[in-house]
Amino acid sequence: MKTILKGRTSEVVIDTEGPVIIIGESINPTRRKKLVSTLQDGNFDFVLELAELQIRAGADVLDVNVGFPGVDDVKLLPETVRRLQEKFDIPLCLDSPNPKAIEAALKVAAGKCLINSVNGEEKSLKNLLPVAKEYGAAIIGLCMDDDGITHDPGKRVSIAEKIIERAVKAGIKPEDVVIDPLAMAVSADPRACLVTLETIRLIHLKLGHNITQGASNISFGLPDRESLNAAFMALAIYNGLTCPIANPEKITAAVRAADLVLGRDDFAVRFVEYFQSHQ
Amino acid sequence: MKTILKGRTSEVVIDTEGPVIIIGESINPTRRKKLVSTLQDGNFDFVLELAELQIRAGADVLDVNVGFPGVDDVKLLPETVRRLQEKFDIPLCLDSPNPKAIEAALKVAAGKCLINSVNGEEKSLKNLLPVAKEYGAAIIGLCMDDDGITHDPGKRVSIAEKIIERAVKAGIKPEDVVIDPLAMAVSADPRACLVTLETIRLIHLKLGHNITQGASNISFGLPDRESLNAAFMALAIYNGLTCPIANPEKITAAVRAADLVLGRDDFAVRFVEYFQSHQ
Repeated sequence: MKTILKGRTSEVVIDTEGPVIIIGESINPTRRKKLVSTLQDGNFDFVLELAELQIRAGADVLDVNVGFPGVDDVKLLPETVRRLQEKFDIPLCLDSPNPKAIEAALKVAAGKCLINSVNGEEKSLKNLLPVAKEYGAAIIGLCMDDDGITHDPGKRVSIAEKIIERAVKAGIKPEDVVIDPLAMAVSADPRACLVTLETIRLIHLKLGHNITQGASNISFGLPDRESLNAAFMALAIYNGLTCPIANPEKITAAVRAADLVLGRDDFAVRFVEYFQSHQ
Repeated sequence: MKTILKGRTSEVVIDTEGPVIIIGESINPTRRKKLVSTLQDGNFDFVLELAELQIRAGADVLDVNVGFPGVDDVKLLPETVRRLQEKFDIPLCLDSPNPKAIEAALKVAAGKCLINSVNGEEKSLKNLLPVAKEYGAAIIGLCMDDDGITHDPGKRVSIAEKIIERAVKAGIKPEDVVIDPLAMAVSADPRACLVTLETIRLIHLKLGHNITQGASNISFGLPDRESLNAAFMALAIYNGLTCPIANPEKITAAVRAADLVLGRDDFAVRFVEYFQSHQ
């Protein structure tokens, strides 16, 4: 199955057979005070700098989250999208819990965006599916619903099925629903990663959709997060993850390595190319 | 299934349910000129230094290979074992293509060693199984035979079965046969790692034996071998690898990370402990 995203003129194909597409996570105010303060001053230089760094480091798509306390991201998200698309041709992933901000951003965005995210809650489905349909966007379907977060991989898959079904009913193509299995911190629950891996395996096997994931969450609260994220990344890709949301400056080598050992990079062309341009 | 190895007084349990046991690979003359030259001078200081470094870095067992052109390892291997066991209590893995060197080393070794390796060739089985039985050693069974190396995971598993069957007939306990699925360089064959991973999965599933592997081979000839070895290590452990032969100074963080994400390190106790003692 192939999910196609578009920038102004560019096109990125997320293919369930790989290779892996990287969605850069860095335009996000969490632990980035400088992003908050520059945006508060109406200064977009740092956002553009984060975009450029991530593209150089291997990002194929950029997640854009500019929500923080005291900001009206119904105004700020579309403005940020406009500034990014003036300078870069990379497809965008619009990231806000506020459907009005998503819609406002879709109105100004060129190409075909990914919405981060719809979940299985009635409110979310009702608010966002018509918007996605209207603007021709793809969506991330997060495996949680009105009952909250389940630790049962089978139930997470059922929520994914429900989101896909409802999306198709709303007129969205099935391949435009990318599933997020949910990743929780292994420091809090020793089985958290196993649950996510099993969910990924089942979604890949039973539903065959593309799968994304905020891949840094699993190591929250632990030291040497890079070793943990790299180990989990390889396992998640092996089971069916195709478009992680992560920091390309830290994860691209691990992603290229996983693609290579999984037979998706003949004669190591992409792996060596990445190494040569980043040593 | 549990394979128990012993030093003079220590005991290491390799358990098919994990956590992973690391067999340190560094006492090996390949690309270590200093090891060759010091041993040629009858000087064991560097061997002892390599042992100490690896134990500090997380090795549970030490592989001992002192074979190089012009050396008689029927004398050198037992002498090296004696020197190592005078100073360290860690179990040893005796590594030589020469059955006479293995036997000579077993004669002087305290505890219970692992023999690296027996393979499916008639000559190997006839020479080494009686020796393993006589000295109560465990063996590594390498998945190749008189027909050479096959790329078919199913056939590799058949060779493993044959080695186990023959070992049991020779009086060796089944749990004392650790299987090596063979790992080839992914630079030469894009499917090499997939074949090894599938062999590991099948051996774990069908035979349930412990599995070892020279885990650095896969990245031969490529840059950034650490990223590749780490990605492959996580995948191999997920499929059933329990006692890789690797350089602990480079791989222990990846191994501890894999154990943690696979739910074998509750509340990250071992992972954090390793991090704190190696930062």
